[in-house]
Amino acid sequence: MASLDGEIRAGRHVMEVRVYYEDTDFSGVVYHANYLRFMERGRTNYLRLIGADHRALFSQAEQEVPGFAFVVRTMTINFLKPAHMDDVLAVMTVPEEVKGASIKLCQHVRRGEELLVEARVRVAFVSAGRARPIPKPLRVAMAADHQAAEAGGLQARSTTPGD
Amino acid sequence: MASLDGEIRAGRHVMEVRVYYEDTDFSGVVYHANYLRFMERGRTNYLRLIGADHRALFSQAEQEVPGFAFVVRTMTINFLKPAHMDDVLAVMTVPEEVKGASIKLCQHVRRGEELLVEARVRVAFVSAGRARPIPKPLRVAMAADHQAAEAGGLQARSTTPGD
Amino acid sequence: MASLDGEIRAGRHVMEVRVYYEDTDFSGVVYHANYLRFMERGRTNYLRLIGADHRALFSQAEQEVPGFAFVVRTMTINFLKPAHMDDVLAVMTVPEEVKGASIKLCQHVRRGEELLVEARVRVAFVSAGRARPIPKPLRVAMAADHQAAEAGGLQARSTTPGD
Amino acid sequence: MASLDGEIRAGRHVMEVRVYYEDTDFSGVVYHANYLRFMERGRTNYLRLIGADHRALFSQAEQEVPGFAFVVRTMTINFLKPAHMDDVLAVMTVPEEVKGASIKLCQHVRRGEELLVEARVRVAFVSAGRARPIPKPLRVAMAADHQAAEAGGLQARSTTPGD
Repeated sequence: MASLDGEIRAGRHVMEVRVYYEDTDFSGVVYHANYLRFMERGRTNYLRLIGADHRALFSQAEQEVPGFAFVVRTMTINFLKPAHMDDVLAVMTVPEEVKGASIKLCQHVRRGEELLVEARVRVAFVSAGRARPIPKPLRVAMAADHQAAEAGGLQARSTTPGD
Repeated sequence: MASLDGEIRAGRHVMEVRVYYEDTDFSGVVYHANYLRFMERGRTNYLRLIGADHRALFSQAEQEVPGFAFVVRTMTINFLKPAHMDDVLAVMTVPEEVKGASIKLCQHVRRGEELLVEARVRVAFVSAGRARPIPKPLRVAMAADHQAAEAGGLQARSTTPGD
Repeated sequence: MASLDGEIRAGRHVMEVRVYYEDTDFSGVVYHANYLRFMERGRTNYLRLIGADHRALFSQAEQEVPGFAFVVRTMTINFLKPAHMDDVLAVMTVPEEVKGASIKLCQHVRRGEELLVEARVRVAFVSAGRARPIPKPLRVAMAADHQAAEAGGLQARSTTPGD
Repeated sequence: MASLDGEIRAGRHVMEVRVYYEDTDFSGVVYHANYLRFMERGRTNYLRLIGADHRALFSQAEQEVPGFAFVVRTMTINFLKPAHMDDVLAVMTVPEEVKGASIKLCQHVRRGEELLVEARVRVAFVSAGRARPIPKPLRVAMAADHQAAEAGGLQARSTTPGD
């Protein structure tokens, strides 16, 4: 199960994604919009794992703002190199800036040591269709991951997912 | 607008679909599951146009069973020939059997005269998450289209793709 | 890696699939065409694992018919129950009939004990865009899985979804 | 056909897109990555229409660099308001900067007067898998559209979504 949803290591969430037919297009490589699907899986699982690690805090957040979710407000994406059918990719997600009403995440898609796609994603916190302040437990957990990732070295530096 | 949603002619709904990058895979042709997206667009627009033609009847149906929709129960699909990037395809939808709680539709995807994909789709009528009897106005409209298509003859006739 | 691609047990390939936002639609459940994506991942990984288990045989097949792949010719699908966001599904793939030029696979999508989707899929063997006889090593491996699955008995048995 | 692929008016390509089930997710609105599919349809059709308008020039470009295509290098996207099932959206594409080896496009997705999504997209010109100088006829046509759009004034002006 852990491997299905990836894991948080040194403040960074990393998960593996296999490239299937559905992800490619006739030019032979992964269709650009599909990296956004991969990165959304990463964000969703990151949130899932934070929630599993801090269940008490999250049930509190769930009470404050039921049915909460992150919603993407802005993305800046660099498509550096293409991925191909059958590739195993690592999607990394790490908080870069944690504020009261939005969070900026850094996300990388790598194949081994190669960085293929890099994105900055600003997400807002939404409950029942409305933007909300981010519950404190969640801010604290993400700020801690941000600290851990910073301490772990240059943020841009290639992680070695070497799983 | 008519062209965006297709049109009903002689009991058959026909709409055009352009093949884009997103629809293909690295083998060079349209990814098989994407024909189901094309056919669902056809069913949705067919229902939309019936509703537009019979607005009084539909507002009645809407009152009887608010938020109704068709849900696919079974499909049998024959993939006969591949479609390619930039192709303009015609998606045809015609009722083949209209019963009290479900409808069987015949759907074709063609490129010019060539039949590429043929499907039989049994849909149920659902409102608020539960299967329901199909409102009479809708049954009547679809049965009339079935009659018209039968009368129209040859082109509607199912090819036999020799499975 | 095994868990990423699933595994073959008693003649059946089984892999887990997590349901993400991208898989659902506004009706609240998994969009019907997306089960075909899940099942294609199952078929692709089944073929991958057979290839890994019989590497010598496959490099021979690869020589006989370079760049081979399965292509779906016909599918019959029963959509029995809906899947939801965050569900973990099991996709099972098992050969049901192995012939010289095509293979019929039985595929199930389950959530725990519940059968959600059931399909029969006839695939042809294609190399360089043309249908080909299926190389013997592949036929032998699949026929063996078919035997093993039959022997395994009950769980493989097709439910009768009462169409 | 014009309506299927949209049209170029005053230097701007505009096409209509209908929102279907496949485009939405269980949160009730269009899944964020699917706007990239809509915008890619816009870019593809814009290129198609330029090619149709300047057939002689394009057959020359096709000779210089066979099989050419645009490939997305970077995107900055603002998701301002959500779109819903059945919405008819207008996708606008206009060249913002035309250089020797890349082009920056501005793309808007609107519903009536409302701006829902705004993007800046830098595309490179690729032939046979390699980046290439953009053929002069294409640069000239796009620079002319850029001029026309600038002259057209207000509607082209970028909103400032206050990131």
